[in-house]
Amino acid sequence: MSKLKFKILKQKWNARVWEIELNGVKLQTPVFMPVGTKATIKGLFLDLLKNKEILWYIEPIKLILANTFHLYLRPGDGLIKKAGWLHKFENWEDWLILTDSGWFQVFSLWLWKDDSRDNHEHKVDIKLVEDGVHFRSPHDGSKHFFSPEKVVDIQCNLWSDIMMVLDVCSPGDADEDTVYAHMQQTHRWAKKAYDHFMKKYDDVRWVLFPIVQWGTNLEMRKESAEYLSQFATDGIAIGGVSVWESKEKVREVVEFTTPLLPQDKPRYLMWVWTPEDLLHAIEHGVDMFDCVLATRLGRHGIAFSDNGNINLKNAKFKEDFGPLDDTVDWLKSYSKSYINHLLKEWEMLWGIILSLHNILYLHKMLENWKKKFLER
Amino acid sequence: MSKLKFKILKQKWNARVWEIELNGVKLQTPVFMPVGTKATIKGLFLDLLKNKEILWYIEPIKLILANTFHLYLRPGDGLIKKAGWLHKFENWEDWLILTDSGWFQVFSLWLWKDDSRDNHEHKVDIKLVEDGVHFRSPHDGSKHFFSPEKVVDIQCNLWSDIMMVLDVCSPGDADEDTVYAHMQQTHRWAKKAYDHFMKKYDDVRWVLFPIVQWGTNLEMRKESAEYLSQFATDGIAIGGVSVWESKEKVREVVEFTTPLLPQDKPRYLMWVWTPEDLLHAIEHGVDMFDCVLATRLGRHGIAFSDNGNINLKNAKFKEDFGPLDDTVDWLKSYSKSYINHLLKEWEMLWGIILSLHNILYLHKMLENWKKKFLER
Repeated sequence: MSKLKFKILKQKWNARVWEIELNGVKLQTPVFMPVGTKATIKGLFLDLLKNKEILWYIEPIKLILANTFHLYLRPGDGLIKKAGWLHKFENWEDWLILTDSGWFQVFSLWLWKDDSRDNHEHKVDIKLVEDGVHFRSPHDGSKHFFSPEKVVDIQCNLWSDIMMVLDVCSPGDADEDTVYAHMQQTHRWAKKAYDHFMKKYDDVRWVLFPIVQWGTNLEMRKESAEYLSQFATDGIAIGGVSVWESKEKVREVVEFTTPLLPQDKPRYLMWVWTPEDLLHAIEHGVDMFDCVLATRLGRHGIAFSDNGNINLKNAKFKEDFGPLDDTVDWLKSYSKSYINHLLKEWEMLWGIILSLHNILYLHKMLENWKKKFLER
Repeated sequence: MSKLKFKILKQKWNARVWEIELNGVKLQTPVFMPVGTKATIKGLFLDLLKNKEILWYIEPIKLILANTFHLYLRPGDGLIKKAGWLHKFENWEDWLILTDSGWFQVFSLWLWKDDSRDNHEHKVDIKLVEDGVHFRSPHDGSKHFFSPEKVVDIQCNLWSDIMMVLDVCSPGDADEDTVYAHMQQTHRWAKKAYDHFMKKYDDVRWVLFPIVQWGTNLEMRKESAEYLSQFATDGIAIGGVSVWESKEKVREVVEFTTPLLPQDKPRYLMWVWTPEDLLHAIEHGVDMFDCVLATRLGRHGIAFSDNGNINLKNAKFKEDFGPLDDTVDWLKSYSKSYINHLLKEWEMLWGIILSLHNILYLHKMLENWKKKFLER
């Protein structure tokens, strides 16, 4: 039944290294997925992530993220389908794409609704109903509706390899009854999405992950994990962390939730923040990660390093002629002094260098972890 | 005496194809030089210009420009020297760099002085004296002085392979006496720069070009070309066009000036605007070009094409799934529809794709011209 095949390379305690195979692409987990929200990883030719000149000594990056909500609104999943699907549109043929369900962005509109800092041109207007969610485009105020079935259709139009079900995510200040009702709604939507997917799309090579949510409420996490595991034909996601919670709470949730998920399916932890969080989650049996910080911090002049994040704008780097990382071809040619110069001159190459550095930093961190784990 | 060696591959009428050799690098002229003003071609890894995966079917780009004025002010030629010179600083080792004299930027400050649109933080303050020019930094108002000798020293600190002498460029509304006085001053400065260079730096591998100016005044062009040719040990530049003049006037000046220059030295036409201007100049015996439009138009969403410039923001490209150019690897993977999407979403990859496209467009145009010329 499962379309995503896997081979266990090693499992020890909770951690594991697998080789998974989907649509002809083999990759090893744990895997870090760079975020390409609007069909582009900001500032990077995707060729850079698969370039043999740069990545000759490690596996290339084979799986990236895209955002259903943004691509549905602009340029539209219909246009992307006409273009030959997202893989061709964004120049990621031969490799894999995971798309989120879009709910988090709708949810963000919801949060902004009562936010006095709201600087959106158009009044947001979100209405949650049994069948789905009504919302308005933040671009032009036009009306839209997401149902669990429609979100599957959109992701199929994009030709996402790994799709997410539409879920509900409660605001941080919602009362317990509301949150519980949202969980039940998420469960009903997961069943609808799954039934629709199996009926309409099971003959093709897409896979669909349900998402286990519910913040730091461990009882609800347990109930949700148990219920949703039935739809985890190919994998399952842990969502709803890293939104409001402290680092300690997130770790507690990860440690609590992973043992409740099927042992023989990949587990995707949505929205990891720091390299340390990522290493913690791996040790507790998580297989897949995304982290928007790699590129976001890069655009703000900040680089991951083994001694913590460093801000290249800092004057102490003005005459620091060493590279950020001497192991990556191309990047090792650029000194911290040079990046400091680019930042002062507002020369866009800084964001490109640092985004690529940060992505490769996480990618290499996992490669190194895997190597050591296999030798343990 | 000449440090820049050349071999004539073909000369016919006024046009010519040479192989020139400087500091161990061989390249064919006519050659287009992309502009890397502040030690970066905006948004591009310089590796892209020499990447065999992209440019497998043509010669890589081997000669780029940098800007003496900007680099002197920030990060400073002293810092760049400490970094191991500009080649290492900007990741252009093994290839060649040409730097301008910086006068055009000082001259721009002069123009802005009385410009009500002036949005510079610090009052500009230019004073031309016999020995050089006093000016203030537009960044912090600090006082600076450029002399012909100092500008040679700065360019040597950068380790520019091909340097320009400091010249004077008259405002478009200057009276005839002023312009003539500027020409004479330029001539005196050229001699000073040349003497200084020969005395202090002749043992190394830098070359210095004088610049023939004087707008559309053909008599002065003639006088200047004749006088300055004595300092053209390795080559000579044609400046002061493409500032105020019409397309026709620029062409007239090029046609008039090139026969006055030494036949056996490369000729560099500064500031070419369009692909057609470039082709015109080649036919009249110009060997080297820069064109800031390639990257500037790219950042504004405009691409060179065989049918003229096209604006990718135009709605007609929304569903145009063909590439801009199907001959360039990497770039041919991106459709016009995709670039249109990036522009709408303000996703910086558009500028990167179009800058690289426009640079390679001019580079390939010259490669094709050479091929045909050699077969003529």
